[in-house]
Amino acid sequence: MDAVAEEMRLRRPVGGIGTPRREADVPEFVQGITDGRATGQPILIKIANGNTDGSKYAAFYDTPRPGHADLPALLKFPDHDLSGSGQFSGRLTAAIVAAGAVAKQIIAEKGVSVDAFTRSVGEVADGSVRTAAEARGSRAFATRACTQRLDDAMRDHIERVGASRDSVGGTVECIVSGLPIGFGGIWFEALDAELAHAMFGIPACKGVEFGDGFELAAMRGSQSNDAYRMDGGRIVTASNHMGGIVGGMCDGAPVVLRVAFKPTPSIGVEQRTINLRTGTDDTVTVEGRHDPCIVPRAVAVVEAMAALTVADQIARGFRWDWIL
Amino acid sequence: MDAVAEEMRLRRPVGGIGTPRREADVPEFVQGITDGRATGQPILIKIANGNTDGSKYAAFYDTPRPGHADLPALLKFPDHDLSGSGQFSGRLTAAIVAAGAVAKQIIAEKGVSVDAFTRSVGEVADGSVRTAAEARGSRAFATRACTQRLDDAMRDHIERVGASRDSVGGTVECIVSGLPIGFGGIWFEALDAELAHAMFGIPACKGVEFGDGFELAAMRGSQSNDAYRMDGGRIVTASNHMGGIVGGMCDGAPVVLRVAFKPTPSIGVEQRTINLRTGTDDTVTVEGRHDPCIVPRAVAVVEAMAALTVADQIARGFRWDWIL
Amino acid sequence: MDAVAEEMRLRRPVGGIGTPRREADVPEFVQGITDGRATGQPILIKIANGNTDGSKYAAFYDTPRPGHADLPALLKFPDHDLSGSGQFSGRLTAAIVAAGAVAKQIIAEKGVSVDAFTRSVGEVADGSVRTAAEARGSRAFATRACTQRLDDAMRDHIERVGASRDSVGGTVECIVSGLPIGFGGIWFEALDAELAHAMFGIPACKGVEFGDGFELAAMRGSQSNDAYRMDGGRIVTASNHMGGIVGGMCDGAPVVLRVAFKPTPSIGVEQRTINLRTGTDDTVTVEGRHDPCIVPRAVAVVEAMAALTVADQIARGFRWDWIL
Amino acid sequence: MDAVAEEMRLRRPVGGIGTPRREADVPEFVQGITDGRATGQPILIKIANGNTDGSKYAAFYDTPRPGHADLPALLKFPDHDLSGSGQFSGRLTAAIVAAGAVAKQIIAEKGVSVDAFTRSVGEVADGSVRTAAEARGSRAFATRACTQRLDDAMRDHIERVGASRDSVGGTVECIVSGLPIGFGGIWFEALDAELAHAMFGIPACKGVEFGDGFELAAMRGSQSNDAYRMDGGRIVTASNHMGGIVGGMCDGAPVVLRVAFKPTPSIGVEQRTINLRTGTDDTVTVEGRHDPCIVPRAVAVVEAMAALTVADQIARGFRWDWIL
Repeated sequence: MDAVAEEMRLRRPVGGIGTPRREADVPEFVQGITDGRATGQPILIKIANGNTDGSKYAAFYDTPRPGHADLPALLKFPDHDLSGSGQFSGRLTAAIVAAGAVAKQIIAEKGVSVDAFTRSVGEVADGSVRTAAEARGSRAFATRACTQRLDDAMRDHIERVGASRDSVGGTVECIVSGLPIGFGGIWFEALDAELAHAMFGIPACKGVEFGDGFELAAMRGSQSNDAYRMDGGRIVTASNHMGGIVGGMCDGAPVVLRVAFKPTPSIGVEQRTINLRTGTDDTVTVEGRHDPCIVPRAVAVVEAMAALTVADQIARGFRWDWIL
Repeated sequence: MDAVAEEMRLRRPVGGIGTPRREADVPEFVQGITDGRATGQPILIKIANGNTDGSKYAAFYDTPRPGHADLPALLKFPDHDLSGSGQFSGRLTAAIVAAGAVAKQIIAEKGVSVDAFTRSVGEVADGSVRTAAEARGSRAFATRACTQRLDDAMRDHIERVGASRDSVGGTVECIVSGLPIGFGGIWFEALDAELAHAMFGIPACKGVEFGDGFELAAMRGSQSNDAYRMDGGRIVTASNHMGGIVGGMCDGAPVVLRVAFKPTPSIGVEQRTINLRTGTDDTVTVEGRHDPCIVPRAVAVVEAMAALTVADQIARGFRWDWIL
Repeated sequence: MDAVAEEMRLRRPVGGIGTPRREADVPEFVQGITDGRATGQPILIKIANGNTDGSKYAAFYDTPRPGHADLPALLKFPDHDLSGSGQFSGRLTAAIVAAGAVAKQIIAEKGVSVDAFTRSVGEVADGSVRTAAEARGSRAFATRACTQRLDDAMRDHIERVGASRDSVGGTVECIVSGLPIGFGGIWFEALDAELAHAMFGIPACKGVEFGDGFELAAMRGSQSNDAYRMDGGRIVTASNHMGGIVGGMCDGAPVVLRVAFKPTPSIGVEQRTINLRTGTDDTVTVEGRHDPCIVPRAVAVVEAMAALTVADQIARGFRWDWIL
Repeated sequence: MDAVAEEMRLRRPVGGIGTPRREADVPEFVQGITDGRATGQPILIKIANGNTDGSKYAAFYDTPRPGHADLPALLKFPDHDLSGSGQFSGRLTAAIVAAGAVAKQIIAEKGVSVDAFTRSVGEVADGSVRTAAEARGSRAFATRACTQRLDDAMRDHIERVGASRDSVGGTVECIVSGLPIGFGGIWFEALDAELAHAMFGIPACKGVEFGDGFELAAMRGSQSNDAYRMDGGRIVTASNHMGGIVGGMCDGAPVVLRVAFKPTPSIGVEQRTINLRTGTDDTVTVEGRHDPCIVPRAVAVVEAMAALTVADQIARGFRWDWIL
């Protein structure tokens, strides 16, 4: 239960670079855990919304915000309720992080861990190959960068963007360590397919790639194939262009994926939109409390989604016991 | 049924740039279609394997091929059968294309169409924004490029790579037109999440992005938000950085996604691997008939996967009838 | 929201024939409903547990109760929590009834209604064929019998059984009206298969049959086939031995099913069991507050399960719009 | 592969009491099995239809057969193909039996077996409690009765019914042995819920009950609760009124269920129906080759469905490894 609180802390905004909206985010364990142990019941964790102000959303019924779910949601659901953005709110990732904290404990029993970090914020990019240990080290930094220097640069970049009432995107990299060769599935149960599915479930995700990803499109097979070799009795790959997955299954290397996040659509400048009531062009300005960059907070969400996906595949027996 | 045959033709290899292995790929409609009309039964289409030579795979039981599923499959399944690569063979995409041809007819009844083309092969990239009509025009070219000049350049590139017994990757872009605003879902039923899931089910896929995708990570919200405006009584977006999807649902713009494919792992040069029998380092050389670039053939597969995903969401009522 | 409260009232115990445990059972609508209208979000209804006393369950860790889930649950889950019987408690049917009340409103928009009543309690059986209107009339009676005379007899029977610290079983009959010919599916999506699945999810259910059910096993085809005839331009069946379902789909007659419930396993007499701590034979006596007969309260649960199943099939398009 | 052929033999009609239609029913193993061992690929078994005559079905487009799926299927699917009854044909149970034969080998590795027999045919009922060994002995008899005397009586009954161009129903009892205490799930994953779901997927199934089933409705808790006792270090139940399942999970006793089958709807006498073309009352006579009683052949199908359900729950980990 402390582990859940710790993961949730990592998702909370940090002064200067996050939204000024403050939520206690104290997870309440309603069901399924007794004396710190899972009973076998479904686990119910409640995270209260404390600091809400639904009135700010009234204008968006007429003038939906560009980049937000307002317009499709209003046309899809006749009685859609915009207060707090409803089910489309990034706030719901708090529940994902709490569930992921439980999943991390399940997969840890199998020797599997998930560690992510901020690979880039706007133009500030971390150009180094990073290990799981370095990714874990990012927990010490507000931006979830891997080094103090990168944290400073990213923080500075976010603050400058925020000061101009604008927002900025970025990328998160995630490393799954400890999966045995053969873990995963094929076709619609491929490990990469299910991980990508989960990542695109995170609001603002616009791209997912494994290993060298889109760069592989410009490479030759003689460069991209990861050779196998023996290392102290274990089979290892000599490189990791594939990001640890071939044919939907692990090849023994760590699974490495990158997730692209768009800039937060909520920005404090006037934007062009339409007016659903009048059927004419109009403008909208989004006041309120927003993150100029959600990437640092998204790191915890990416980790949680990866842990949930792996735990889900373990639960389906993919195929721990059949593997060396 | 002619439509199925036509889609399958687009997946077949073309002289010079594809594998010399020749399959008739004539779809046999075993069940579910009577007099050219669907009866309501599950549709069973049989595509025979004619031109196979399982003996070529015997060596890979000992020395699994880098970049292939050999190693994870052999460790996962004690009695894995490598002949023809089994369920891990790209050959299975023939079935996807046949099923996709049926799905295309289903979604066409709702006014939805899917058109893809080759965005890049190795370093040869198409730098222009392309419309669905241009994508459809790629059916005239062996490489599925959008213009004769690009087709020439890509074909030349593939032939040179093939001559050096190497392979090369590339990217496919796919445009889904005609979806109404609000089509899709959220979280694990988001349209982008389900499309990405399907794309990563295609062998050799290593990345998926929507709209400006990974470039969005370096952009500002003031650049990336797609403004709405009225156009002849219809709501349209003034740009399409989002690739037609916000909050997991369509915003009225065409859905645009790009899929990165790695180079074919089968290359005709000696590669380092391990020997599972002896437990030592070894080498493997892959003889046989391979595509130096599978991207031109993957275009039909990407279209099929997109059509199947959209048809599947329509079947679940996401939410055609609830939408303006 | 009033409709939900009304359905929940029907599940509450009645003085004399139900458990003396009293729960307010006031449904709290936490999410998904604004101003009495569904917003499109998942609907979250909270039903608090007020009147609990977990201490009474401590003895069952050692001496599991016959007929209860204690023994299998304790062996399955190392940290199973017996307090209040956890997820195995009949108390969870309160949530089913609340969800069913929402489902009833969904299917009512399609002209479908679900009405159930108590067909038998112990040896007291209702021998008449009952209409949906008569079943609906059972809402006036504590036992959910269809007539005052039957209500008196059943109530008397339950009270006598309760006085002897014993319990008794019974049967519930459920009528689904308004489904069009062809509604349902086949094989694993057959309407009867999915209804039976749902009914066996109710604690204490031990049998489900449609139409003449087990009596059909002793009949001839010339007796059991329901002939079709025209009735004012509509196709109707001349009888309803099939309970409205052939081939997994509706034949136009009302769907009629019967559900058998075993006697409540909690009885106030000493029973033989084993002691998990000592590994020897032992006895257990279940004190506390129990229903001598849960059948009257199960009627609301059967209705809810049927409504949820039908709503689920409608949501999958089975196949309202395709049908005359 | 021999095991599959043997199970399929048990489903084939027997002279005198089954349909004169003869199918070779030789299973062809197309994929997934090499040298008699599963490779890990999906297993594809092909069973050809040899002896078909679609012309006999032409009349039923106008005058649908009572008790058959004709009417709902024709109204549901505009282009429904009645030839051979399509997907609604009992012929499809051949595939279930073949798949079940594979499932039996999977569950046998865990020590689980499934044995069924004919409990009744029309008024001829087996009144004895039967063991799994006796059920297995029914494989020696054409009617799948447990004794020669019952086989004679049932065979005689079926022949007389068949001679009068009529049909008759019956019941099948199925015993699942070897499941550990705690096997199964709860609510919608309850073992009885999933077994019932599968059984109602079998054409002509109209009722399913576990243990004493519908008789439990008239019993007292003091009679129906199965007491636990120690027997040579193992926990056993002193009786088996519950049919081996409490709370959706096994209590250590064999799982016992009974399935009611209606009389075959195809009978050789004129029946009243409607004419879909003219919209008036009409009659229909079903010529052709029918089973006067499908119960003896349904025994193999019930076994197969039970084996598939148990194998499916094992595959989901319900929860073999967690159990004593």
